[in-house]
This record gives sequence, structure tokens and C-alpha cells, in this order.
Amino acid sequence: MGESLMESRAETTLPAPGGQPYGEPLQAAGAPGGRGTIGTQRDGRPGPTEGHEAAMLLERARAEVDPVLRTALGSLPGPMRRIALYHFGWEQADGTAAEGSSGKAVRPALVLAAAAAGGGSEARAGAARAAAAVELVHNFTLLHDDVVDRDTTRRRRPTAWTVFGDTDAVLAGDALQALALRLLAQDPHPAAVAAAARLADCVIQLCAGQHADLALRRRAPGEVTLEEVLAMAEAKTGALLGTACAIGGLYAGASEAEVAALDAFGREAGLAFQLIDDVIGMWGDPHPAGKPDGADLAARKKSLPVVAALASGHPAAAELTELYARPGERGDPEHIALAVERAGGRDWAQSQAADRMARAMQQLARAVPDPEEAGGLLALAEFVTRRAG
Amino acid sequence: MGESLMESRAETTLPAPGGQPYGEPLQAAGAPGGRGTIGTQRDGRPGPTEGHEAAMLLERARAEVDPVLRTALGSLPGPMRRIALYHFGWEQADGTAAEGSSGKAVRPALVLAAAAAGGGSEARAGAARAAAAVELVHNFTLLHDDVVDRDTTRRRRPTAWTVFGDTDAVLAGDALQALALRLLAQDPHPAAVAAAARLADCVIQLCAGQHADLALRRRAPGEVTLEEVLAMAEAKTGALLGTACAIGGLYAGASEAEVAALDAFGREAGLAFQLIDDVIGMWGDPHPAGKPDGADLAARKKSLPVVAALASGHPAAAELTELYARPGERGDPEHIALAVERAGGRDWAQSQAADRMARAMQQLARAVPDPEEAGGLLALAEFVTRRAG
Repeated sequence: MGESLMESRAETTLPAPGGQPYGEPLQAAGAPGGRGTIGTQRDGRPGPTEGHEAAMLLERARAEVDPVLRTALGSLPGPMRRIALYHFGWEQADGTAAEGSSGKAVRPALVLAAAAAGGGSEARAGAARAAAAVELVHNFTLLHDDVVDRDTTRRRRPTAWTVFGDTDAVLAGDALQALALRLLAQDPHPAAVAAAARLADCVIQLCAGQHADLALRRRAPGEVTLEEVLAMAEAKTGALLGTACAIGGLYAGASEAEVAALDAFGREAGLAFQLIDDVIGMWGDPHPAGKPDGADLAARKKSLPVVAALASGHPAAAELTELYARPGERGDPEHIALAVERAGGRDWAQSQAADRMARAMQQLARAVPDPEEAGGLLALAEFVTRRAG
Repeated sequence: MGESLMESRAETTLPAPGGQPYGEPLQAAGAPGGRGTIGTQRDGRPGPTEGHEAAMLLERARAEVDPVLRTALGSLPGPMRRIALYHFGWEQADGTAAEGSSGKAVRPALVLAAAAAGGGSEARAGAARAAAAVELVHNFTLLHDDVVDRDTTRRRRPTAWTVFGDTDAVLAGDALQALALRLLAQDPHPAAVAAAARLADCVIQLCAGQHADLALRRRAPGEVTLEEVLAMAEAKTGALLGTACAIGGLYAGASEAEVAALDAFGREAGLAFQLIDDVIGMWGDPHPAGKPDGADLAARKKSLPVVAALASGHPAAAELTELYARPGERGDPEHIALAVERAGGRDWAQSQAADRMARAMQQLARAVPDPEEAGGLLALAEFVTRRAG
């Protein structure tokens, strides 16, 4: 890692509360970056040499899981298969082959990295089906969330409901959930049953998180507490990242305590990711989140920095309350972002993200004491919180 | 069984193609009714002594499964729990207790009867969780289907989406699917994993069936073939009844061939049920189906008797095509029903139902050769095809 990289990161380096669970050996193992470097460069893109390990892990996860996913999707009845293959970016709406992106495979990569951390390459190889199951659940929620949120773009293509209609997108989502759990029920691996129970439990949390998100959107900004938004983000984003790590641990034969620590690691990293995603959505490059800059603000989304700003008691909070009280009007996103920043929302989100990452590191050290073995999970956690993808 | 009962049934007695797989011992075992008596009385209600065994099996299944269901639903996060308890008829919309009906428990009763048929009372007792899981999947599909079909009444109460909105009804359905599969994943019974795989596979068929139903509705009546409507009914209705029986067999330690025969038994009985349900919807008492008489016709539903009539080549089919070509107009349901009947739709549906029931009986004999042990499943199959509920 070159000095220039350290400099470029220094711009957005956050204070890291809590200790450094890993010492020198971690850097020797080639894990990227020191602790407390969560954040993005001003342009939101990783530097030229940043996140190489994570990128390799993601690419490898994609290569290992895609064949399993393709076989699983191929077993669906015709119409469900077609919608699913479109959603994954592997077919056009007319059924011809496509070279679209099916996402960054963060969740499968976490399953595989957690399996490898505890059980080496053999455990990693045995967890491919579980990694695919987690990815199927993720995509089931995307299909349903896009319908509910009326989002029209996903991975730079029209969302499935805009092409096939609401009903078919909901049905295809239902089928993907079933496919995920069928994949685990048919997996002879001794960890598969416990993994299925965790994944099904996670789906329930995801549903509750999505419900909470929609319920919070309907409420007046001043009536939404930070605790509520954090709990929502944990259910909606943290739960599946935690479950991915926990399932990887199960496939590595980890103890109950280690699995719980892996779950907590993923959850905390997931919250850090959400915080950084909110920061990028408001102040950073729109590229990583795949959304136009200011879209969240234009929609008056009650993101974590916004709710923190509203609750700050700072004079700028009153102005922000005023701006948020008129959701119909087109406000200047930069104007709103400035008010959130002045009221301390940006600082709070960044320090909260650093805090969550520090907690994630502590949980990781508990689950995987050997820093060399923990390197992959650490690289992925840093990747998602830097890229917010 | 009194002579008066036989007379009242004789009105709608159907010819029974195929042999009688069970001989005298079946009647000695107290199973209701002879073979070939599928159908309803003119008033659509069972006679005074008809279906007593089935009624007892359903009541017992409700009593055994409800505590498992209540515990499972109680574990859901607050808002999901509230929607689910409303849907099951156990809570009012405001969260106060309700004494509503959660349905007739046909599917749990089939699970338990199939378990008992192969493994006695011990197997039956061990299958309560699996029976609850099947009922949860059924209710997940009801929640989603009601949203998609815009049905406003379910079990004599406003449907969940009319009370909580589309999104929450979809999310609660998603959570119920996950809850069903979590219940099986946490069930220590050695059959639970295979049951989970079957149940998840069934969900995929149910999704495809609902997709096909909606796709068929959008097509012109003359362009829909009987084969397509039968395949749709098998996926939408037969699959879960078959899966319920197959899962019961798994919990009884049945062989692969026996489980397959139980699945086929439930599927065939499910198709017979659907055919009789369509007949009742057009010519019978609206009570058992819980819908106003003629509602299917008013909606120009392409039910099995209607599609059979349209495909009959009978002169009345042309009149029917004309009537179906004007879905916006309020046609006289009795007029349409008469045209379907004259074109042979009613006769076809009744003989097809009898044929399906005969096949169901053959499969049942294969799965459970002892007629005494098969009595419960037989009683339930005759109940659903008589009651069409």
C-alpha cells in the first residue's frame, strides 16, 4: 500500500472509538487499510490500489456462486424463471441473453469468507449453495422492495415490475424466497438445516425492517427518533449481512458463540455501511449507490444523518424541519445537505459509522481471533463501508 | 348411513370411472359414503349425517395445530404479527381478540391424517409442526392472492390488504412463508428437512399457478385450452393438497413410492375439489365457497366448466363465446350458467371430478393399502369434494 493511498484516505479518516483488536500481523497479512479509515474519498471512488483484496473476493464469490444460482433459477417454472433471469441481469425482457450485472455479490462473498475464516478452503467450497441461498433471499427482497418503493431502476436496468407488472414481480420474489430455502433443505451439508432456520428468521426481520421503513416515511420528520431509524436499518440492512456471516460460520463448524459474534460483526458492519451510504447519498459521488445525487433528499428520505440533524437541537435543525415539512416542493438538495451538515448530521453519521465499524472489529476478533484468517471478512467490511455498495 | 342420505346424494351422484380400490372393509371402517358419490346436494350442504368423520378430523386438526400456529405467529415482530393475527381471524384490526374463523384446516388435517395412516397416533402427534407449516404457506398465498385478485372478503371479514394496505399484506405474506420454513428447519423430526424441501418446492408451483391463473384471465376465452386451465388448477390448488399428504407420509416414515402416491392422491383430490368448487360457484349454494352465487360468472372467470363448454363445439358454445366477449356488461348469471350447462360444461366437470377422485382413490390404495388406515384421508378427500371448501 503506497503512501499516496494513505494520504487520499486521510481526507475522510474517521476517529476510531474502541481499541484495535488486531495488531501488526493483520497488516502483514495484507488486509487493506488501518482501522478508523471508514469513509470515502471526496469523489466517492476507491483509490487506485484500495480494496484489491475485497475486489478479488467479490469476483471469486461471483464466479463460485453464479453457476449455483443459474442452475437454481433454471429449475424454476418458465414464467418465474424468465422474470428472475431478467432481474439478475442474465436475460433481456424478451428472453434473449444479456450481460447485465447481477450485483456485487457482497453477501455471498461474506458467506464464503466467513466459511474460509473458520474452516479454510474446504469449508469455503462446501458453502457455495448457502452463499447462493443468501443471494436469492437478497434478490427476493429487492424484487418486492422495488414494487413497494416504486423504484424504476435497479443495476442500471428497468426494475422487474416496470417490465412484467407488480403481480409477477411479487410472485417471482415469492418464488426466489422458496428457491433459497429449498436450496438449503436439499443441501446435504450438516450445517444446512441450522443455516435454513437462520435465513428464514432473517427474512422475517427483513420484512419487519421494510415495514418499519415505510411506516417511518409516513410519519412527520420530527416524530421519528434516531433509535427507530437505527433499528429499522439494522433489520433492513444489518440482518442479512449478519446472517451471511453467521451462515458462513455454521458451514465452518464454528461454535455457537463464534456464530453469534460473526452475526454481530455483519450487523455492525451493515449499519456502518448504511450510515456511509446515507452520507454518500447526500454529499458524495452518486456512483457507488447507483442513485442520482440528492435523490434521497428530493424524496425527503428520513435517512440517518437527516434524523440525527433534526434531533440535534442545533439552530439549523429548525430550518431543516421547515424544509422537510414541505415534501411537495422542489428544494435545492445542496441547500438541504448544507443544513443537515450544519446541524451535525454528517459528523454524527461518520462518527457513528466509525463506532459501528469498531464494534464490528471487536466482534470479528471474538469470532476469528487469528487476524490472518479474519483478513477476508475485514477486507469485505471495509469495502462495503468505503464503497457503500 | 340412512337411506334418506343415499337418496339425497343420488341427485348428484356421478359415474365413477375406474375400479373400487377399497372393498367392503372400508365401509366397515366407517368411512363416509360410497365411491362415485362426489358432488353436492342441490342445496350444497352436506346431509345431516354426512362427513361426520371428516368434520371430526378437521376439528381435531384445528385443535392440534392452532397452538403451534399461535406460538409461531406470536414470535413475529409486532406489526407482522398483528397483520397475521388479523388474517387468521384471531385479532381485530385494532389488536383486540377476535373469534373469527381461521379456515377449515383441510391442509393440516391432510398432513395429520397421512401421518396417522402410515405411522399411527405417534406419527400424527409428531407432525403437528409440519401441519402448521403447511397451513402457514396456505395463508401466505391467501394474503398475496387477495392483494393481486383485489378480493375484499376472506372468511367473512375484510381482507388484510383492505385493512393494512397492499404493502403490509405482501410483507406479512412474505413473513408467513419464512415462518413456515423456519418452523420446519427448527423441527428436530428426521423427516423435517425433506418436508421443508417439498414445501418450498410447492411454493414455487403455487407461484407459477397463480401466475398462470392471471395470465389466462387476460387472454380471450377462445384462446384458452382445457389443458392449460387444468395445469393451472393443479399448480394452484392440487400442489399444496398433494404436498400436505406427502409431508404427512414423510413424517410417518413412508417409502419414496408411498410418498409419491400420497402426493398424487392429494393432487387428484385437489383437482376434483376445484372442479366441484367451480360447479358449486355456478349452479350450487354459494355458502360453501363463501362467495356470492354467480360471482365467478359476473367476473367472466374462465373456470373449468366454462372452458370445457367453450371448447365443446356445441351450438351453445357460440352463445357463450358471445357472452364472454363482453365482460364489461352485466350478464344474467343464470343465463350464462344455462349456456355452459347446455354446452356440456357441467356434465364434463362432474364426470371429470369423478374421474379425478377415482384416480385419487387408486393412488391412495397404492400409498395406504389397508382401507382402515386410509379411512381418514378418504373421508377428508370426500369432504373437500363434497363441500368444495
